[in-house]
Amino acid sequence: MSEKNGGESFHMTPGEFRRWGREVIDWIADYQETIERYPVLSEVKPNEIRDALPKKPPARGESFATILEDVKRVVLPGITHWQSPNFFAYFPANASGPSILGDLLSAGLGVQGMLWATSPACTELETLVLDWLTEMLALPERFLSTGSGGGVIQDTASSATLCALLSGRERATGFSVNEDGCTGRLVAYASNQAHSSVEKAAKIAGLGRRNLRLIEVDENFAMRPDDLDARIQEDIDAGLVPCFVCATVGTTSSNAMDPLRDIGQVAAKYGVWFHVDAAMSGTAALCEEYRYIHDGLELADSYCFNPHKWMFTNFDCDCFYVADRAALIQTLSILPEYLRNEATKTGAVIDYRDWHVPLGRRFRALKLWFVIRHYGVEGLSHHVRRHVALAQEFASWVSESGDFDLAAPVPLNLVCFRHRGGDEFNEALMNRLNSSGKLFLTHTKLDGKLTLRFCVGQTMTDRTHVSRAWDLIREEGARHLSG
Amino acid sequence: MSEKNGGESFHMTPGEFRRWGREVIDWIADYQETIERYPVLSEVKPNEIRDALPKKPPARGESFATILEDVKRVVLPGITHWQSPNFFAYFPANASGPSILGDLLSAGLGVQGMLWATSPACTELETLVLDWLTEMLALPERFLSTGSGGGVIQDTASSATLCALLSGRERATGFSVNEDGCTGRLVAYASNQAHSSVEKAAKIAGLGRRNLRLIEVDENFAMRPDDLDARIQEDIDAGLVPCFVCATVGTTSSNAMDPLRDIGQVAAKYGVWFHVDAAMSGTAALCEEYRYIHDGLELADSYCFNPHKWMFTNFDCDCFYVADRAALIQTLSILPEYLRNEATKTGAVIDYRDWHVPLGRRFRALKLWFVIRHYGVEGLSHHVRRHVALAQEFASWVSESGDFDLAAPVPLNLVCFRHRGGDEFNEALMNRLNSSGKLFLTHTKLDGKLTLRFCVGQTMTDRTHVSRAWDLIREEGARHLSG
Repeated sequence: MSEKNGGESFHMTPGEFRRWGREVIDWIADYQETIERYPVLSEVKPNEIRDALPKKPPARGESFATILEDVKRVVLPGITHWQSPNFFAYFPANASGPSILGDLLSAGLGVQGMLWATSPACTELETLVLDWLTEMLALPERFLSTGSGGGVIQDTASSATLCALLSGRERATGFSVNEDGCTGRLVAYASNQAHSSVEKAAKIAGLGRRNLRLIEVDENFAMRPDDLDARIQEDIDAGLVPCFVCATVGTTSSNAMDPLRDIGQVAAKYGVWFHVDAAMSGTAALCEEYRYIHDGLELADSYCFNPHKWMFTNFDCDCFYVADRAALIQTLSILPEYLRNEATKTGAVIDYRDWHVPLGRRFRALKLWFVIRHYGVEGLSHHVRRHVALAQEFASWVSESGDFDLAAPVPLNLVCFRHRGGDEFNEALMNRLNSSGKLFLTHTKLDGKLTLRFCVGQTMTDRTHVSRAWDLIREEGARHLSG
Repeated sequence: MSEKNGGESFHMTPGEFRRWGREVIDWIADYQETIERYPVLSEVKPNEIRDALPKKPPARGESFATILEDVKRVVLPGITHWQSPNFFAYFPANASGPSILGDLLSAGLGVQGMLWATSPACTELETLVLDWLTEMLALPERFLSTGSGGGVIQDTASSATLCALLSGRERATGFSVNEDGCTGRLVAYASNQAHSSVEKAAKIAGLGRRNLRLIEVDENFAMRPDDLDARIQEDIDAGLVPCFVCATVGTTSSNAMDPLRDIGQVAAKYGVWFHVDAAMSGTAALCEEYRYIHDGLELADSYCFNPHKWMFTNFDCDCFYVADRAALIQTLSILPEYLRNEATKTGAVIDYRDWHVPLGRRFRALKLWFVIRHYGVEGLSHHVRRHVALAQEFASWVSESGDFDLAAPVPLNLVCFRHRGGDEFNEALMNRLNSSGKLFLTHTKLDGKLTLRFCVGQTMTDRTHVSRAWDLIREEGARHLSG
């Protein structure tokens, strides 16, 4: 603690910040170098972390050395290592050096970008980088900010889906729900394989779970446009108001690809807001050969994908695009006196506070900009391509194994498979693999059967990790069968 | 770029991360040391930042040195310096060394804490630190996780308010809106001085703006409980369903303190969910002498305050508490197959995904824990007390000035005042002060008159800054008057 203005300051001085900042940087670099030594899935029991820490807050400040010591002693054992190259669970939340440093700079600048005026760079860099990404992923031009669309960083796809649904709700009712409230006649649509966030959004927005129609899927778990069409027609005949269709590019369960063009045509026929959720898989469009996943996307009113899943950018970072930004802004706009300012009055700037639920916002474009500039399109597409190739190779091993079967097509980097031993066997196998600490994978249910999911997307995962994982899975399967 | 497994890796190696990490740490320390040299409010014109950057994304990766160079050349002029001690605008978004380093560690670990199992430490540290804070702020015991309540970190108070309103909506309807949708009969209440996020939440949740009753305030801009009571009774008589009352501890316009006890009694009388928004001012309760602001808080169903405003913790960090966590969880819970796991099944753990809108979440408790441990209760309360004293001193200068008047009581660290020259004069004065680059303050309207707001809360603000600001304001006022 340093003396300042004759009194105790308690603040960390810039000098101390340099010293401890280096320690933390080194700590992270050490962590990156040794991450494979830790069990991927944390082995602690409930309350173990909490019980190892003081019950009472500290009355007096402590040294930074003590704090870092506790991170190592108490926190680290309670970490499930999402950045381990042996992490194959869920969808990844991958990160990278340039992203961490971009995030650090954002924390250091400490700006709050609710309005253009509260840090023009925070807004303009975000708009620019999101425009860049439309080119990098060959997204439709209607999402460009230079036209009548535009992109914004949201925390997660859940929030993006909510904003899309709200915009659809308002557009379908002439913006009258915002004014007078829901009337109980609004209906939304997604496949029965869509992410749980669609149901959550339907509840939050006041539509209700029962007014979210779960559309049938085909044998590949992709939405059936004919069923969508029939359900919308049925609802209209019943006097209801369809307001939102959500299609998925790469479902969470099995990476199924909904047919965007056919769904988009149905949505257009009825004038319903069409949102496309490509949270993980959208990133694949960095590579020309996978861009077919977005075929028909020009029919969408909104779209999102998460660089924080598969584009080496720290959580949180979801890129959300709309074709008609006026509809989104009209849906979420609020302008109290204390936020009025000259720049907003001119109408020449974007105030991102009207593009999402929160008012305040961090400078998240920095980390995304750092990642894109560090890797270039070349580096990013290289790693995405490699992850897909590794998943395909893993899938081929499964197919040829005799003991395991693929449970769904493998369009990109998620392999859904199961041992022939049945549900209980597969669950036990998964638990044994995860408790080995050597890898982490998760499950889903497909066709009513427990199915293992193996997603290749962590930044540092390479062939060694995938092939070692397969060896473990096969050995554990064989041992378990004979045991 | 390093060779790896025989191919190009493109990744930043741990060695490179050490090198560039130190550069960024030093960059931030330099920034801290020189921040007062920059104009507080950015002087760039719309599109100036964007136009200074390449229109196209880079095909190939660039050196980190080039990226950092562009931060200095392009980004920095577009920053409005929220971390400048001469920042007196809005409410602060203050930060500190330990917070930045906690955030850095969180980025380095890169965990996603949607479930207890996906990083037990991320969940348990958050629960513990939020319990600590109830003690530090002397909040009611009903908010403790060790009882039937509990706290969670949200991004902002806007999101906390939304979650509170949703919980109220569901409790008032037997959780039927979640199921069947809104019926158009639900009503919410807040004072006409409440934050715009209450209106935003009423829109999002499907209640509609017209079903948010803006309750009258007294001469101090505090909600009138008698008007609240009358309006609720009126709505019940009209067959409507009151579901949510929001009181504010420290309104954004004028830092008005709604009388929690009286409002809570009205809410209790009608069985309506009672939420208390103490976004900035809650932090003052670190000091015993300001704890009166929370008198009656034990009647609240939920409460939030933002350590990212006035507790030296980087944005975003809102602490949201509920007395009955079961109601919140039932409101927001979703459990798809792919998130099921052993720990969740036992019921012995918290899965924070059901406590807010997004599914995924960062390890934000780390920065909060770092701040509390670095400063201790002693250090935190020292600075809060000092900020309040400086604001009070500033208010006394205003009172004694002859040219300026206070426009509202000054309970804590926000001073609302205006020159006697009228609205146009005050607006021109504000614009001239802000374009001087020497300080940044903003305005509101009180009693229909344009009012300047001067909030003392930035981490490094001390007496020198406040007294220099007053000199500038007085001089500029005098010059402007004579000019």
